[in-house]
Amino acid sequence: MSKDLGITARGDNYADWYNELVVRADLAENSGVRGCMVIKPHGYRVWELMQQALDGLFKSTGHVNAYFPLFIPKSYFEQEAEHVEGFAKECAVVTHYRLKANPNGKGLIPDPEAVLEEPLIIRPTSETVIWNTYKRWIQSYRDLPLLINQWANVVRWEMRTRLFLRTAEFLWQEGHTAHATYDEAEQESLTILHQCYARFAEEWMAVPVLRGVKSEVEKFAGADHTYCIEALTQDLRCIQAGTSHHLGQNFAKAFDVQFQSAEGKLEYVYATSWGVSTRLIGTLIMAHSDDKGFVPPPRMAPVQIVVIPMGRDDETRAKTIGAARTLADALRSLTYGGLEVRVHIDDREKESPGFKFNHWEMRGACVRVEIGPRDLEAGTCIVARRDNGEKNTLTLDSGTAQVLVDLLDQIQIQMYERALAFRNENTHRIDSWEEFQKAFDGEGGGGFVLAHWDGTTETEEAIAEKTKATIRCILLEPLHPDDEKPGVCVYSGKPSVKRVVFAKAY
Amino acid sequence: MSKDLGITARGDNYADWYNELVVRADLAENSGVRGCMVIKPHGYRVWELMQQALDGLFKSTGHVNAYFPLFIPKSYFEQEAEHVEGFAKECAVVTHYRLKANPNGKGLIPDPEAVLEEPLIIRPTSETVIWNTYKRWIQSYRDLPLLINQWANVVRWEMRTRLFLRTAEFLWQEGHTAHATYDEAEQESLTILHQCYARFAEEWMAVPVLRGVKSEVEKFAGADHTYCIEALTQDLRCIQAGTSHHLGQNFAKAFDVQFQSAEGKLEYVYATSWGVSTRLIGTLIMAHSDDKGFVPPPRMAPVQIVVIPMGRDDETRAKTIGAARTLADALRSLTYGGLEVRVHIDDREKESPGFKFNHWEMRGACVRVEIGPRDLEAGTCIVARRDNGEKNTLTLDSGTAQVLVDLLDQIQIQMYERALAFRNENTHRIDSWEEFQKAFDGEGGGGFVLAHWDGTTETEEAIAEKTKATIRCILLEPLHPDDEKPGVCVYSGKPSVKRVVFAKAY
Repeated sequence: MSKDLGITARGDNYADWYNELVVRADLAENSGVRGCMVIKPHGYRVWELMQQALDGLFKSTGHVNAYFPLFIPKSYFEQEAEHVEGFAKECAVVTHYRLKANPNGKGLIPDPEAVLEEPLIIRPTSETVIWNTYKRWIQSYRDLPLLINQWANVVRWEMRTRLFLRTAEFLWQEGHTAHATYDEAEQESLTILHQCYARFAEEWMAVPVLRGVKSEVEKFAGADHTYCIEALTQDLRCIQAGTSHHLGQNFAKAFDVQFQSAEGKLEYVYATSWGVSTRLIGTLIMAHSDDKGFVPPPRMAPVQIVVIPMGRDDETRAKTIGAARTLADALRSLTYGGLEVRVHIDDREKESPGFKFNHWEMRGACVRVEIGPRDLEAGTCIVARRDNGEKNTLTLDSGTAQVLVDLLDQIQIQMYERALAFRNENTHRIDSWEEFQKAFDGEGGGGFVLAHWDGTTETEEAIAEKTKATIRCILLEPLHPDDEKPGVCVYSGKPSVKRVVFAKAY
Repeated sequence: MSKDLGITARGDNYADWYNELVVRADLAENSGVRGCMVIKPHGYRVWELMQQALDGLFKSTGHVNAYFPLFIPKSYFEQEAEHVEGFAKECAVVTHYRLKANPNGKGLIPDPEAVLEEPLIIRPTSETVIWNTYKRWIQSYRDLPLLINQWANVVRWEMRTRLFLRTAEFLWQEGHTAHATYDEAEQESLTILHQCYARFAEEWMAVPVLRGVKSEVEKFAGADHTYCIEALTQDLRCIQAGTSHHLGQNFAKAFDVQFQSAEGKLEYVYATSWGVSTRLIGTLIMAHSDDKGFVPPPRMAPVQIVVIPMGRDDETRAKTIGAARTLADALRSLTYGGLEVRVHIDDREKESPGFKFNHWEMRGACVRVEIGPRDLEAGTCIVARRDNGEKNTLTLDSGTAQVLVDLLDQIQIQMYERALAFRNENTHRIDSWEEFQKAFDGEGGGGFVLAHWDGTTETEEAIAEKTKATIRCILLEPLHPDDEKPGVCVYSGKPSVKRVVFAKAY
């Protein structure tokens, strides 16, 4: 176990810890293309598990998938003014449709004779191209609601990028729904928030989230209002994990999408859009991982159980490998969370047990089962938990597989409980400006601060400028009933309706 | 059942039939973005079923998924000469990373101050960006093989597009593998061809395919050789349904990817790549559908069984709907092909039974179950097959669901058998140039023609010019042992090793 296998400790430099972990746990790496990442197989497996769970939640709430073009003609973009303001600025623009040999030398150049009449934007989000399509699909109230989701790649030209958290290209899902009434669209945006996003974060990712609505400053460009889920990282910052927008009639008006109501009246359609992205993988890492590497909860782990058979000579190795295979087969015949248990036998001959322990701690196998010759003689195996390091000796028999699956469930629950306790410890109610400033002083985070705010953009921006803390959300349900009582703004001293959540954000 | 609900008959105009079917069956439509399609929910469901089956086949043969950047820097593209020749010509080129307000008027323009130093190409295929990455991942024989697949969108700037068959943007999977030896890469390309692609086409899509190798003219730009599966359409043309390329050391040399062998020698890596795309949906339609609409085999059908409860008054409707729900619940508790049976109850009040029959014939429900008041009294239902129109009366009891699932299996098998018989009827062995020309005369297809060829590109191109028929593949296994006997070229009269497959291609 050589020292150079480690990564920077969280306490020494949290940013370095994160960056090194992502690469060393084989999750992703920067590509040769500026701002774009390569999601490696181990990291992509996490995304597949996320997709599978979310897709199931979307379908069980009545949604279907479809696919819309990657390219958005510039003119579509220009149609919704606020949206342009929010998105048009930093985006990838296609201007040519052909390369040709460079007449002045080697290589290729965009062919000057192949200039597009109208430049195309690589979608940063698909509202404009989708509403252009919905215009054709929606004539009558009978065509509503449309409940459509898309799994896709999008591009936003970011100047400073970080693996998973902020990349020029990223993968996501974007839901786009159309409704006959305001109330129905409102219900849809809340269904997604609660029954899909918050449920997924808490039950699959084991990450407790605050559910709230964004302030005017922070809402989506073009939305009536934006709901969000917000998580706390181990460096006490806030990370936005998903958003659900009630778009009102803004896009319907911009793209002239009207329907004939049951009463025969022509009305504009109400809309929602909502999305989560590969950023969730960053959220997952930030919430649970430690100085030894990646710690996914079992439902999000590419490898839930790694079995390591040991032995110095071929004969004993054959025996422990045999026992490992019997256990792995028994595990694969069981399910956890509706899926086949994900088990891997690491029987590499040339690597030492210590090397393998480190390897799977870094890559986040939830449970390690060690089977050595002595264990085998005693009819036992050693079981180590990744999340808290606990090691136990277990009887190795036909019941072991079920015991291990029960252990996965215990880990899943305890990881959530630990994250929730951590969030509670780091959520503070602050009433003085001095204390508020102190909470967000320095380079680190500051946790969630529940403070009174006078409701003005002016105050919100002044606070952000002075402390780097911003309003992450206005909670839908208070953490404590007293949080909904009126007070005075922590900055301006003016009246406040209730406490809102401040934090430094990723 | 109004006349205007129909589509052009295949016999009247096959191209119109196809285009109208795709739109009317709600599978896809052209978007407002030139050359790009919108895949509608019903069509996307077919793609999801394809993805699910193929992904399972890839994983069961040892592959994992990952994700690589959408953008390819121009310089990567320039590195493999043959590949550039094949792909660089028609592609989408990103030159700017920002839009700005047009100073001369309304709207937005690409910001002249935000020109990329190096233009980026939207991937037409990912060999170059992936081999640039593999260079970092591969040092030793222990890093091999790499068996990676990617599900992604790609763009090829096509001037003439057709829904699913040829679009500027399309969805596909592309496998990219790296191996220590030629033999291992060869084995990989054949495993994909036989165990994944051909198996999927025949067992899931019910489309019999020829398995062969491409001639030099038709092979992938940059490949050592290309394997393919080829299907016959109902208008007697050939459609390429998937390709698997043995790339030799071409990309390893272009991107300088060497590994240290077990013996300590530095060697170039061998590579394969392979892909199938949303074109498969076009293939599926072309193979089976009829003048009434879409006819997917059960394993590819978004809706396998549609149940239509009938009745003129509320009371009888309540009864037939109740019976429909009981049957649907029983069906959903069963599986077919490893997945829950996909059943839909069409209980719309305002539409007539006739309208619903047409609707589901167009959209391709494999089996229609009609439950009317009289049927219910008699304890029966009427079952209609989409593929051959057969109608039967069935007892409606607790065993009906299983009878229907067995019927799905029967349909799946019989659709394959019918397509195979059709291909056999339209596969001809031709030995005279006159007959050969006659076979491919006129606008239509001509089926598969097995003819002798002298093995030269010159002859291949001359035949193509005179008849529009091209060599679709050189079969890996002969359809008949005699096809492998030597003969004389149908065009040049020179010696020929064996018969090859000619056809007009989509």
